[in-house]
Amino acid sequence: MKLKNNMILSWKPYILHLKTPFRIAHGTSNTRQNMILQLDEGLGEAAAVPYYNETISGISDYLSNLDVSDWHPDHLEDILCMLPAGSQAARTGIDLALHDLWGKRLNQPLYRLLGLNPDKIPETSYTIGIDQPELMADRARQMQWPIYKIKLGSEDDEAIVAAIREATSARIRLDANTAWDRQRAADIIPRLAEYKIEFIEQPLPKGDIEGLRWLRSKNFGVPIFVDENIQTARDVVAHAGAVDGIVIKLMKSGGIREALHAIHVARALDMQVMIGCMVESSLAVTAAAHLAPLCEYVDLDGPLLVQNDPFEGIKYQDGRIILPQEPGLGVVPIQGKH
Amino acid sequence: MKLKNNMILSWKPYILHLKTPFRIAHGTSNTRQNMILQLDEGLGEAAAVPYYNETISGISDYLSNLDVSDWHPDHLEDILCMLPAGSQAARTGIDLALHDLWGKRLNQPLYRLLGLNPDKIPETSYTIGIDQPELMADRARQMQWPIYKIKLGSEDDEAIVAAIREATSARIRLDANTAWDRQRAADIIPRLAEYKIEFIEQPLPKGDIEGLRWLRSKNFGVPIFVDENIQTARDVVAHAGAVDGIVIKLMKSGGIREALHAIHVARALDMQVMIGCMVESSLAVTAAAHLAPLCEYVDLDGPLLVQNDPFEGIKYQDGRIILPQEPGLGVVPIQGKH
Repeated sequence: MKLKNNMILSWKPYILHLKTPFRIAHGTSNTRQNMILQLDEGLGEAAAVPYYNETISGISDYLSNLDVSDWHPDHLEDILCMLPAGSQAARTGIDLALHDLWGKRLNQPLYRLLGLNPDKIPETSYTIGIDQPELMADRARQMQWPIYKIKLGSEDDEAIVAAIREATSARIRLDANTAWDRQRAADIIPRLAEYKIEFIEQPLPKGDIEGLRWLRSKNFGVPIFVDENIQTARDVVAHAGAVDGIVIKLMKSGGIREALHAIHVARALDMQVMIGCMVESSLAVTAAAHLAPLCEYVDLDGPLLVQNDPFEGIKYQDGRIILPQEPGLGVVPIQGKH
Repeated sequence: MKLKNNMILSWKPYILHLKTPFRIAHGTSNTRQNMILQLDEGLGEAAAVPYYNETISGISDYLSNLDVSDWHPDHLEDILCMLPAGSQAARTGIDLALHDLWGKRLNQPLYRLLGLNPDKIPETSYTIGIDQPELMADRARQMQWPIYKIKLGSEDDEAIVAAIREATSARIRLDANTAWDRQRAADIIPRLAEYKIEFIEQPLPKGDIEGLRWLRSKNFGVPIFVDENIQTARDVVAHAGAVDGIVIKLMKSGGIREALHAIHVARALDMQVMIGCMVESSLAVTAAAHLAPLCEYVDLDGPLLVQNDPFEGIKYQDGRIILPQEPGLGVVPIQGKH
């Protein structure tokens, strides 16, 4: 008879209030509801991102159907391979809680258990949501951040990039969040290239891999990355030769372990990697930051965008991210908010 | 000024004597010379396999040119990414010593630092080198092993498989070690398929990927694996759709970290994975065994083939492999032999 480890899983939703309304091509948000999980001592987070069809009730249903009682907390690979298909956000929450618990049991911060150097995290971008061009440029002036990620997908795309480039000499990345069709992308990208752009994310609708290949073959001088197109390592394979880089997010991949796989596959296919986040608290964003030394680009600004972050984890020094030194994810609840 | 960690690397060659002369399609060996490395407290091994153009002097030259004094032992990824190209065996020796040291510093066996379940290691095959068919069949009778890997590439290939299948009901895998051309492979594989074969390894000359794709398209009912064709994760990508599985060996990949990458890439490409070894002591084979819970098939019989193994590590219970529980690789020198 198998001895039960009697692990205990609990979860509760919380509402993240954004500092300013956040508009991207998929819609505008003032708040987001995420789920906080606890698996014994391990903490996890699952983001209910509407445009990935994740909901609080879907996440809750997924978690309700798990029997965690005989999980062995050291057997990460076994548990994560056994998790049924379903909400990727819920799977991510479990993966994060397991990695946090694992690090706490081994008394080591996660980055050390991954063999990574915490000083090798590239600076993170700060995201500017869609607004009137001058207001977006004002935001760039105020923040004095070293790298901006500019959300596009409105009628003003070129005016926005021109206004921000006028306002700052910071590094600029663009993100169309699936907003353009092939023709619009082929028209506008060479014009945007004039403004010294690092790369453009997800210019085409989700799934249009052939369109990406076509767009890339035109050599507009702006590297093309995909975000919405990629969830797991398997999706990375499908983009071989079609893009210059991919955007990994824990909530898409199903957690840290599958994100690592996707990064390794991207390497073998000569793709660059940016690690990003959804609207998330410091819990999930700190988890992502532990992987960031493996990535060329970092877009982990979630905690900067929320008013009521219930956790403390990474710290920012301008664009630099400082990882916590505590065991596991190194995240602690802020009293009274959690 | 950067503080030096003053790590110290040393190495010395040793001769492994085989219990019986080992003949495969690449030639016959009575002994092999490998290198033992020590990096602070970490132990590594580099196998000088002639048909991979590895020599003791080449390994020694590679190691002589490394400056390890300011390596930080926790920054595995940094160090392994910085290692110059050159002897894969020497790179493997460094990777193993680093992982051993890392596990010892964190006071955990390596498998636990990889999140793996040591009870999930598939049974290992035992290799029978080329000889007269009846002598090979006798060997299978004597060993009473649950799985044999049969070396082919002589005139007697079919008689060998027939004699061994007659002698035992054990599971049988075949390994041609590049010996056949396309025509010979297409002739003999359907005949060998009659003897209930799990798969055939490296039927074609190294590098003939199109030949593999052609052979596989014939659906002979025997899965096709590659060994000599694959070194790193990048090589795995090149075999997408051409084979059913790949054989990972630490000495080919350059160590544990790159082997993990190759395994993840294989998964994303729907390939199966066998982990194997060269003629190696219990040191390098135990290192490979720590990865084995990730693999569908295991061929880690090196220590069973050598007379004078200078290390103690994994134990065998028939085909089962028992991992040591000590920190790092968990390997200890046998007094008087090391």
